Amino acid sequence: MLIDARMFRLGNARNVIRETFEYGKSRAEVVGRENIYDFSIGNPAVVPPEVLNRTMEEILENEPPIDVHGYTSAQGDASVRQAIAEELNSRFGTHFHKDNFYLTCGATAAIAISLGAILVPECNEVIGIAPYFPEYGVFTENSGGKFVVVPPDTVNFQIDFKALEEAINPRTRAIIINSPNNPAGIVYSEETIKALAALLEKKSKEYGNAIVLISDEPYREIVYDGLKIPFVTKYYKNTIVCYSFSKSLSIPGERFGYALVPDEMEDSQRVYLAVCGAGRSMGYICAPSILQRTLGKIVGAVSDISEYKRNRDLLYGGLTKIGFECVMPQGAFYLFVKAMGGDSAEFCQRCKDLDILVVDGAGFGCPGYVRLAYCVKPEMIERSMGAFKKLYDSYK
Amino acid sequence: MLIDARMFRLGNARNVIRETFEYGKSRAEVVGRENIYDFSIGNPAVVPPEVLNRTMEEILENEPPIDVHGYTSAQGDASVRQAIAEELNSRFGTHFHKDNFYLTCGATAAIAISLGAILVPECNEVIGIAPYFPEYGVFTENSGGKFVVVPPDTVNFQIDFKALEEAINPRTRAIIINSPNNPAGIVYSEETIKALAALLEKKSKEYGNAIVLISDEPYREIVYDGLKIPFVTKYYKNTIVCYSFSKSLSIPGERFGYALVPDEMEDSQRVYLAVCGAGRSMGYICAPSILQRTLGKIVGAVSDISEYKRNRDLLYGGLTKIGFECVMPQGAFYLFVKAMGGDSAEFCQRCKDLDILVVDGAGFGCPGYVRLAYCVKPEMIERSMGAFKKLYDSYK
Repeated sequence: MLIDARMFRLGNARNVIRETFEYGKSRAEVVGRENIYDFSIGNPAVVPPEVLNRTMEEILENEPPIDVHGYTSAQGDASVRQAIAEELNSRFGTHFHKDNFYLTCGATAAIAISLGAILVPECNEVIGIAPYFPEYGVFTENSGGKFVVVPPDTVNFQIDFKALEEAINPRTRAIIINSPNNPAGIVYSEETIKALAALLEKKSKEYGNAIVLISDEPYREIVYDGLKIPFVTKYYKNTIVCYSFSKSLSIPGERFGYALVPDEMEDSQRVYLAVCGAGRSMGYICAPSILQRTLGKIVGAVSDISEYKRNRDLLYGGLTKIGFECVMPQGAFYLFVKAMGGDSAEFCQRCKDLDILVVDGAGFGCPGYVRLAYCVKPEMIERSMGAFKKLYDSYK
Repeated sequence: MLIDARMFRLGNARNVIRETFEYGKSRAEVVGRENIYDFSIGNPAVVPPEVLNRTMEEILENEPPIDVHGYTSAQGDASVRQAIAEELNSRFGTHFHKDNFYLTCGATAAIAISLGAILVPECNEVIGIAPYFPEYGVFTENSGGKFVVVPPDTVNFQIDFKALEEAINPRTRAIIINSPNNPAGIVYSEETIKALAALLEKKSKEYGNAIVLISDEPYREIVYDGLKIPFVTKYYKNTIVCYSFSKSLSIPGERFGYALVPDEMEDSQRVYLAVCGAGRSMGYICAPSILQRTLGKIVGAVSDISEYKRNRDLLYGGLTKIGFECVMPQGAFYLFVKAMGGDSAEFCQRCKDLDILVVDGAGFGCPGYVRLAYCVKPEMIERSMGAFKKLYDSYK
């Protein structure tokens, strides 16, 4: 039987994170759940805000089921889009309106669709800045593009602008950033965003071709210590924001997010229509309707992220006290730890031997580091410290 | 700003059906809602079975929200897939199991993904049999394929096998069928499916390359007069079934369906993995999780289709009594009416002049006919008969 070789390869690929998670479950049956320290999976662990289920139940109780479960327009219900626009405007001083938003089945769909809209054969390179979410490469290839990786700035995990400038060429169509960052847990500073905007403006002018900034920001609402997130469209007009409510509302399975094409973008309306067309081409019809209705009524609600902050402090504090070198997380729910001895694959294996499950940074384009997802029970973090101490000592 | 020309064209294209629907709403404000006879939109009009909302509410009440709204595996929750398999087995005597199913955001996603899995550059032609759902061409092109249309059999709207055989060539990769059919309302007989299977087997052998049959069957549960649907995988092993719960449960906005790759298919497991890979490549993560959970508990439930049957009888009876030539609907909720005078565009315009809104069959590859969606209030059908009589008389 003829099949597409790339699709088979993608479907058949081992998902290391999921495999680690499955290993953890089977290992727990052998040694007991309390003796496994599983930091492998980035699943939201804080319950969704209570208003989410309550609103969904009210809709099911009170609204005509034919409407609740019916088609919306392909770009999403107009009043829901307007509610999302106004909520952003009230927080970030932006001027969005409903026609800037194409509601999608999550941020991944938004990225895949946006790339489908803007990649063209003669200008098809997409740059990702390590550490990056590996599916960026998959979505780029899906639209016939070439994915180019800029090595990480391992000093402070902002952007190595020298390396970025070297990577940009006349075929560069887009750059994808992810702040707050999975896996490094850092947030791009306003200074970084300003420098990025200046570079992209310069290069766009030089090549006579606007480079699009795709801002993948599912962790936008998960930041700590009162940090202010610079809203990227205010700094660089040719930005498409790809958002998901998965993390902020702890509903990753429900697949609800958006692509935001601001008015400020060059040819904004044509880009927006191309986004709609790319969604149509890939078989997207509309974002799940009951989720649209629910979110439209509770936009702005966020899960209680203080639990993540407590975990961050526990884990970061505990590991640095032992002696590990860690990147101080400012957002998301990941701690990026420098692999002792320098070999992150070996470090992961030594962790595993002590029943600590972590993910090698190499998969995110950043070998030499490992990712710990701290969306876990705090008791597990506390219990894990003995094992981490043993790990540390094994390198001394 | 560079954008993909095809995506822009798709996003910018007029949707004739939706435009007609919008026209109907604005016209209703002028002449009164009771004086508009809108048969343009194929939205399910029967309420979802009561068990659907009740089950969803119970899940929201009683199950841990983190699980309810959490990720499932990419192919869907194993127990939900198994429940779907067993329900089909009990009705059709098949032997499916969970690993034959990849749960998707509706049948459109299932078709787009399936084509992504099986189209290869050297064998990329996909045949649609008129009248057909126009998005088949869009999804085919999305995976680099060429869409080929076989003209309709306007005698009984089964398949013109002579024309189909002429269309098949060594580059033919797949054939998409849709029974019960939108827009013709017919159901392929067992004789048709047997003849189709025999032809595809012969041609697959002749070219040394299995031709895949994609059976798009969102209307499978909506059939009348006790008609038995031949389950296609039992007749032709290289079949992928693309299904949606949109019509049977009246939940089109919720986007829930599946691609079914049977064990009988050549290289079944490799095809299944390629389907998983194609979903991943297009940014699909999992079907909406609360829908999965709900459907897993109520699989087999169907909206009360007796309302559609009553409408069919009203509309078919009324129009044929006036003198119109109509295809007798056996399933779905569409009546295909022969355009008097032969010019279906003109016929649509004359309908519109009488505030009857219908859709030209030309968009489905079948000019000379118009589609009437009878998922409407029966009172509207009754009220419309005077206008239809005027229409008929205008041609005499």
